[in-house]
Amino acid sequence: MLMSAAEYRESLRRYRPRVYVNGRQVESVADDPDLAPGIAAVGVTYDFALRDEHKLLMLATQRTSGKVVNRMLHMNDTSTDLLYKLEAIRLLCKYTGCAQRYLVHDSMNALFQSTQRLDAAAGGREYHARFLQYLHFVQDNDLTLGIAMTDAKGDRSLKPHQQANPDVYLHVVERRADGIVISGTKAIVTGAPYMHELLVMPCRSMTQADKDFAVCCAVPIDAEGLTIVSRPAGRPGEAAAKFTGKYGQSTAVCLFDRVFVPYDRVFLDGEWDQSGFLTTTYATHHRHSCIAARAGFGDLLIGAGVLMNEANGLDPDRHGHIRDAMVELIKIVEGFFACGVAASVYGQRDLSGVMQPDAVFSNIGKLLLATQIYDMHRLAHYVSGGLVVALPGPDEDHNPATQASLAAVLAGRPDVPASQRLEVARFIEDLTASNSGGWYSIISLHGGGSPEAMKREIYRNYPLEEKAALVEQLLDRGIADGTARVRDTQPGRCCVTGCDVPVVPEAAA
Amino acid sequence: MLMSAAEYRESLRRYRPRVYVNGRQVESVADDPDLAPGIAAVGVTYDFALRDEHKLLMLATQRTSGKVVNRMLHMNDTSTDLLYKLEAIRLLCKYTGCAQRYLVHDSMNALFQSTQRLDAAAGGREYHARFLQYLHFVQDNDLTLGIAMTDAKGDRSLKPHQQANPDVYLHVVERRADGIVISGTKAIVTGAPYMHELLVMPCRSMTQADKDFAVCCAVPIDAEGLTIVSRPAGRPGEAAAKFTGKYGQSTAVCLFDRVFVPYDRVFLDGEWDQSGFLTTTYATHHRHSCIAARAGFGDLLIGAGVLMNEANGLDPDRHGHIRDAMVELIKIVEGFFACGVAASVYGQRDLSGVMQPDAVFSNIGKLLLATQIYDMHRLAHYVSGGLVVALPGPDEDHNPATQASLAAVLAGRPDVPASQRLEVARFIEDLTASNSGGWYSIISLHGGGSPEAMKREIYRNYPLEEKAALVEQLLDRGIADGTARVRDTQPGRCCVTGCDVPVVPEAAA
Amino acid sequence: MLMSAAEYRESLRRYRPRVYVNGRQVESVADDPDLAPGIAAVGVTYDFALRDEHKLLMLATQRTSGKVVNRMLHMNDTSTDLLYKLEAIRLLCKYTGCAQRYLVHDSMNALFQSTQRLDAAAGGREYHARFLQYLHFVQDNDLTLGIAMTDAKGDRSLKPHQQANPDVYLHVVERRADGIVISGTKAIVTGAPYMHELLVMPCRSMTQADKDFAVCCAVPIDAEGLTIVSRPAGRPGEAAAKFTGKYGQSTAVCLFDRVFVPYDRVFLDGEWDQSGFLTTTYATHHRHSCIAARAGFGDLLIGAGVLMNEANGLDPDRHGHIRDAMVELIKIVEGFFACGVAASVYGQRDLSGVMQPDAVFSNIGKLLLATQIYDMHRLAHYVSGGLVVALPGPDEDHNPATQASLAAVLAGRPDVPASQRLEVARFIEDLTASNSGGWYSIISLHGGGSPEAMKREIYRNYPLEEKAALVEQLLDRGIADGTARVRDTQPGRCCVTGCDVPVVPEAAA
Amino acid sequence: MLMSAAEYRESLRRYRPRVYVNGRQVESVADDPDLAPGIAAVGVTYDFALRDEHKLLMLATQRTSGKVVNRMLHMNDTSTDLLYKLEAIRLLCKYTGCAQRYLVHDSMNALFQSTQRLDAAAGGREYHARFLQYLHFVQDNDLTLGIAMTDAKGDRSLKPHQQANPDVYLHVVERRADGIVISGTKAIVTGAPYMHELLVMPCRSMTQADKDFAVCCAVPIDAEGLTIVSRPAGRPGEAAAKFTGKYGQSTAVCLFDRVFVPYDRVFLDGEWDQSGFLTTTYATHHRHSCIAARAGFGDLLIGAGVLMNEANGLDPDRHGHIRDAMVELIKIVEGFFACGVAASVYGQRDLSGVMQPDAVFSNIGKLLLATQIYDMHRLAHYVSGGLVVALPGPDEDHNPATQASLAAVLAGRPDVPASQRLEVARFIEDLTASNSGGWYSIISLHGGGSPEAMKREIYRNYPLEEKAALVEQLLDRGIADGTARVRDTQPGRCCVTGCDVPVVPEAAA
Repeated sequence: MLMSAAEYRESLRRYRPRVYVNGRQVESVADDPDLAPGIAAVGVTYDFALRDEHKLLMLATQRTSGKVVNRMLHMNDTSTDLLYKLEAIRLLCKYTGCAQRYLVHDSMNALFQSTQRLDAAAGGREYHARFLQYLHFVQDNDLTLGIAMTDAKGDRSLKPHQQANPDVYLHVVERRADGIVISGTKAIVTGAPYMHELLVMPCRSMTQADKDFAVCCAVPIDAEGLTIVSRPAGRPGEAAAKFTGKYGQSTAVCLFDRVFVPYDRVFLDGEWDQSGFLTTTYATHHRHSCIAARAGFGDLLIGAGVLMNEANGLDPDRHGHIRDAMVELIKIVEGFFACGVAASVYGQRDLSGVMQPDAVFSNIGKLLLATQIYDMHRLAHYVSGGLVVALPGPDEDHNPATQASLAAVLAGRPDVPASQRLEVARFIEDLTASNSGGWYSIISLHGGGSPEAMKREIYRNYPLEEKAALVEQLLDRGIADGTARVRDTQPGRCCVTGCDVPVVPEAAA
Repeated sequence: MLMSAAEYRESLRRYRPRVYVNGRQVESVADDPDLAPGIAAVGVTYDFALRDEHKLLMLATQRTSGKVVNRMLHMNDTSTDLLYKLEAIRLLCKYTGCAQRYLVHDSMNALFQSTQRLDAAAGGREYHARFLQYLHFVQDNDLTLGIAMTDAKGDRSLKPHQQANPDVYLHVVERRADGIVISGTKAIVTGAPYMHELLVMPCRSMTQADKDFAVCCAVPIDAEGLTIVSRPAGRPGEAAAKFTGKYGQSTAVCLFDRVFVPYDRVFLDGEWDQSGFLTTTYATHHRHSCIAARAGFGDLLIGAGVLMNEANGLDPDRHGHIRDAMVELIKIVEGFFACGVAASVYGQRDLSGVMQPDAVFSNIGKLLLATQIYDMHRLAHYVSGGLVVALPGPDEDHNPATQASLAAVLAGRPDVPASQRLEVARFIEDLTASNSGGWYSIISLHGGGSPEAMKREIYRNYPLEEKAALVEQLLDRGIADGTARVRDTQPGRCCVTGCDVPVVPEAAA
Repeated sequence: MLMSAAEYRESLRRYRPRVYVNGRQVESVADDPDLAPGIAAVGVTYDFALRDEHKLLMLATQRTSGKVVNRMLHMNDTSTDLLYKLEAIRLLCKYTGCAQRYLVHDSMNALFQSTQRLDAAAGGREYHARFLQYLHFVQDNDLTLGIAMTDAKGDRSLKPHQQANPDVYLHVVERRADGIVISGTKAIVTGAPYMHELLVMPCRSMTQADKDFAVCCAVPIDAEGLTIVSRPAGRPGEAAAKFTGKYGQSTAVCLFDRVFVPYDRVFLDGEWDQSGFLTTTYATHHRHSCIAARAGFGDLLIGAGVLMNEANGLDPDRHGHIRDAMVELIKIVEGFFACGVAASVYGQRDLSGVMQPDAVFSNIGKLLLATQIYDMHRLAHYVSGGLVVALPGPDEDHNPATQASLAAVLAGRPDVPASQRLEVARFIEDLTASNSGGWYSIISLHGGGSPEAMKREIYRNYPLEEKAALVEQLLDRGIADGTARVRDTQPGRCCVTGCDVPVVPEAAA
Repeated sequence: MLMSAAEYRESLRRYRPRVYVNGRQVESVADDPDLAPGIAAVGVTYDFALRDEHKLLMLATQRTSGKVVNRMLHMNDTSTDLLYKLEAIRLLCKYTGCAQRYLVHDSMNALFQSTQRLDAAAGGREYHARFLQYLHFVQDNDLTLGIAMTDAKGDRSLKPHQQANPDVYLHVVERRADGIVISGTKAIVTGAPYMHELLVMPCRSMTQADKDFAVCCAVPIDAEGLTIVSRPAGRPGEAAAKFTGKYGQSTAVCLFDRVFVPYDRVFLDGEWDQSGFLTTTYATHHRHSCIAARAGFGDLLIGAGVLMNEANGLDPDRHGHIRDAMVELIKIVEGFFACGVAASVYGQRDLSGVMQPDAVFSNIGKLLLATQIYDMHRLAHYVSGGLVVALPGPDEDHNPATQASLAAVLAGRPDVPASQRLEVARFIEDLTASNSGGWYSIISLHGGGSPEAMKREIYRNYPLEEKAALVEQLLDRGIADGTARVRDTQPGRCCVTGCDVPVVPEAAA
């Protein structure tokens, strides 16, 4: 059952979550103006899946059920799946800024892998079967989940069990016959208010002493004991918000106070030594997705840049510094997107059957965008010119005392009306120089883990030994006496990942 | 007569400017909440000049009158003046974000030079005397002027006189016996609503056909025919605006509709070939000042970074990547500030007697900050962590349903209350991830001219020929046959500027 | 017929080219010590094609003949071909620094496309058939060709036909019944002395007046009238050259003085308006190849970095700044390699049937490496430490007066002998701080065109209009009145290239 | 007594050091061709001090003796001294690449401070008097000293006393009645063979267990037991070395085998807790000097860039990307030089009376140049074009078979002969793409400590607390209850250093 955006919005009425936005309790999520841009952005992931022209990217067949599901809920079987997911997210995000729902994909793929691995390690438990049941439930109902991962963390120099207040990390406070009871704080949950359920996941490796903090489970958004403290999605109701007045993202703090979770929704419970695998695997899927999301954001800036140059009467072919700025913007966006493509091509399938994007390329792509988002803002401003800082607000557009004069003098190229020029300038301001612009930069920098985390993953996953062996071989070192590293690039293996080089066949008919 | 901040605010009541903010006409500038942060920021330039501890930096003696004046109104006589001005602006801006009033300094110094040069070129006219009279008037009354320089510009590929609508550039529409009449649009005027007067200046070199656009003059802020369309200063009234709710900057479009200016306030009128000198000279003074202003902004980010690390429980001495981010932030801020110091030391005095900062160092410093402001934001976010994106708004602080829980879980290091941690996070958000943050980045990039303009000035002013002569000499080229460039570094001259190397004596007692 | 490296070397004896190296005429190319490292590097492209473990990458079936040929001579049919070519070049270059022979691939693919297009445009001519015959000749004999493309250029501000000395560009000086006669200078020909033939190509777009400069043809390396002025390949005979003493690259100036070329070796002759297509198409193939070549160079630096850290006793897991440097090096290398992968995946087939790598990604990858090669050197030095600057030369290794003392004190970690540490340090010095290091950086920056050329290609090929249409659509602009751009992303098309999204299937068995 | 360059060279004959270059023992340092470029470079520091036009910069009066001495041997009394030293070093290095002798200045100033501090700490000892005697001896005889500081270091993860072989750090092996006996290895000593004496200094902080490694003393270059293993200075005898064939730098490993040092030449002996101060203080002086040295190197690249553009017929005013590259080169060079100027202006005098450059600015300047030297190389190559990689060697210039043809086709602009164009290209190659180019980059990166060391110094010296106090004050935090930091910017103090703001007076007459 695939829903439309309208059906998704209606479906939210089935839940009664306890949500606060700016100190005010939300009566009805589906009707709340402060959340509307978030609902609209998620809605696009529903509507596009129903459009013929997007079905190739937006739909896929789930291997375990044989059913056609939304790409945002699909488990990847092939490198092509990874590439299509990448293209699908870019498509969604260039229309919405950030469509949020790809986080479901990222976490569910990781859980597919993690539950299989948990069962393999432990024997006799049935995490994977339980997860499959849940997966099919989510797919069959075309749900959207919020990913409750980042804990509040308290004192950054202490481990979970060392914190003065244990609630700074979410943890199991009671184990009952029929389920567990959890308490604690997830501090940065994207889109929380307008999700159907929350998927609770651990955000770090754990030690044995942190056992109770190693928990993964799903709860409905209106579970008893759950309070959501959210920011508005985008800039609802602001006339100057040419884009984020329509499409935005809420981010929320989620307070869990003795929330009960039945065992059929529990996917990790105390297996502390598996927490790291789940976290890392999720991170790899997610960073791969982030690449596409931010490339879609880049598309918006590039397009706005073209319109701005036109409105200003500046032909980049004659103004080298303007062309340079446009090219630098393209270089950044397609440079990190290429890492997403490479991570797809060199994806690796694990024992669970899920095709996972290559970790090195995924982390490099995310690392590149994390810092270069600021350069993207800079380049958008470079192209927009200083206009934005003195741009009269939209309320001025209807001021009879100034409207005509401003329209006459704020135009650029004669054939582009001032209103169009101002509109593009406000569009750029909205995306890069408003609080939504701030949100985009910070979420790019810290979302999916901070740069330091990516650096560690790159270092951990890179075939350093193989490169060292190459140089030893070239130095004729230890060949004779057998002290050399013996590894060598294997035949037909990728230089980077060591996996088999894939065949890239013809484009789809 | 030095005013206090309170007296400055009261003095604004003497004027009745026609000001619109967000489509609403302002009744009383001095009392308007949307403008209050701007008035407060300018006010600091008054109050600090009255404080004993700041007098060394904030006051100076005007050579032409013998009177002690505010540093922001002073004509520089020495390199020390330039260095003290630099320190004074940094001091003011680290308390206000941007104190705005240094633009008066920049433009008046340029006019001092330009009017002397105009008279020298033309003979017989008395621009300089006229300007001196005005200068002393401004100093004696401790006024603040807005600099109306950047024209609306229309089609960027056309010159002023080629524009379809001549009003996209300000120009003389009539010359009367007692003065001139001007019309047109100045598009980006900092602080316009709460200035005493506007100083109209040309923003580019002109050709003979642009003669009527080559005009510089002063008009009171409530001159007949002048309409000011302004944005609010900072984020007045927003509880989350920990800083820009107090101190901010308005930027305005100023529409001149047949404004009359008597000749004693006209400092350029049709001398099109002097327009470039005035523009460039102003730009050099102004870029030098911008360096100090943004260094003050940098001080705020560095200080907030220290507090954030403390609140998070992260000791930079043990967390190398945090220390690295702090060092990179310092490197950027002091790296461009050093260019301001060097421009002061290697300042050059022209025939008017004004000491002008070195153009190469001033432009390099401004160019560095113009692009690196984005890195400063990035580093501030790096240190703040992802917290900011989900930070509950200040209205949540008093929500009885969530206040206690949030306070308990959003703290970091035990001895720093959550409220202090949130406060610093909001401070960083306010400065870097709000629309005020956007203002700071765009004004840094484009204020005082865009990067391309600085590059051209650097290239134009750099002693390229001298460097070429050095290499020719080292290649023994043309020494014998006399074809070599003959210039060489002169004895005791600065390697960069060619000026005499100054003596830097003991610090002031 | 596939040759071995030894057979390739022997085959050079069949030619008697006129070659000068450092002012000395070369008697026998095959035996000349100054050229040996270049011959050895090309030799690896022969030997690896004979090794079972490399056949998947190194061999391919030529569609037009059905024969199995060396990948370096193969015409690409599929995206997989592009990806395998990429991997093959990286493999070769990580063993040789730069294997040079991929230039044959790049130019022959471009000629395959260009001759088909020439015939299509003109009708009746038989360039493509002629070229196919030559292609099969080259493949059947497993030849290596030098690409003589970059003209001497003379005054950079003038076109070819405007030059005072026409010989600064190669051109047709006479057209005979049986062929053409060419004169002029090709200034940067990689590997020229030890090639079997030279392929002469134009290096720029031409105007009608440049007609005689629009020429493409093949000549044997010992053609009458051809003089090759070459630099040594690598650093032959230098004991400190741990790598470039074995493998290197010659670059040569080639002087053509009335060289006769029969028509069956002429592939462009006066069709000035096709010159740009040939140049650009070659550039796209070549820049794609350069990406792989420099990634192979990166592998050498990464491997050396690992060995250096070991020898110094520095564990990157405990020394964050060392790990950071290694990660930055990896990020650069795999970051631009990813662009090569993406260019393969999004390759496009033209009417000739050749699959061409995507131009945007190819140019971005080359642009990234062109400037980042300097950062790669920096990071290699960062890891190597200051040791290199005072490293005693290899002649010191056998000095009885110092050898024992130096061995005792220049070791790092106790279990790594000083000799191994010095060897790695010399390896890094050789690759980055010798004249060979300089060669690598300059060839990376300027090879395949300078950065400005890539920027223009990126701008020219990027779907800017599509991005502008997206933003117009989001602004609801012109939908109603039909003034909006109507283009939209087509279903199932790549966001970047607009081509069909390819299916990436399972890895090869 | 000031010597000329010729007298300096002759003075070297008074010593009989044991020197090996490339495994060969040097008979006479003064006559050895491999060392000649080093002697020539140091010679310039002598000759320039005798030239009238350079006396202002090159000479200064020593306060403790009243004598006029070479600036490279002078103890700084004022900020002007620091600025003049900076200009003097830039002057010397733009003629020599690196004049080496400023290291004497750096170490002697540090020892002046350190010995005063040692005496103050200990009471009763007479290190400072002993040092003064030595200082005057060095000044009176116009000597040049080598600074033997960087130990071989062995296993980087261990402290000096923990090393398996104690000789990897220099240390005291015996204490006699009349002096000490030292052994060990100093691994990177600039100019060692052609120095009069070596000044042995510790290179790190020490613990009590490292007591014997905390030693500073002076020994004549031909001290018994001292062996110098050196590399040649520059590229002596290579015809292509347009610059480094004349001026170069040797770097040497110095092996001390039971070298006796009388007590009047011992300036630190076991005071392990003072080792860090001496090292750090030296580093601050030295990094300040490095800034000027590399700015001089930058002058050479800028000058060569101008000549190259001329020869190529490229007018940067019309080719924006060439101008951009030149401006970027200037921005880098003057950007870090400005840090040297600021460090001079904000210098601080300690109890010894020596004026020390500000540590923050000195370290930032050195950090900037350490990494940006690679960008300088890149930009020089950008401007030079690809020509360099195929540039025929100088032996080709006299090859009758090719000379005329090459001269005809390798010219650029008609009025600049090919020989001049090639000469400039070789000059750039020599400085940036030869082993000397490698030396410049590595010495810039690691000389005076590696980037990580500078980052730590910046962090340690920066007034972080003051910035935190500023933000607390702005947040109205703790004012009432007294918990706020109470520090504030003091009146009249520099924002960065907290020192008094200096007066910068008129330029010297």
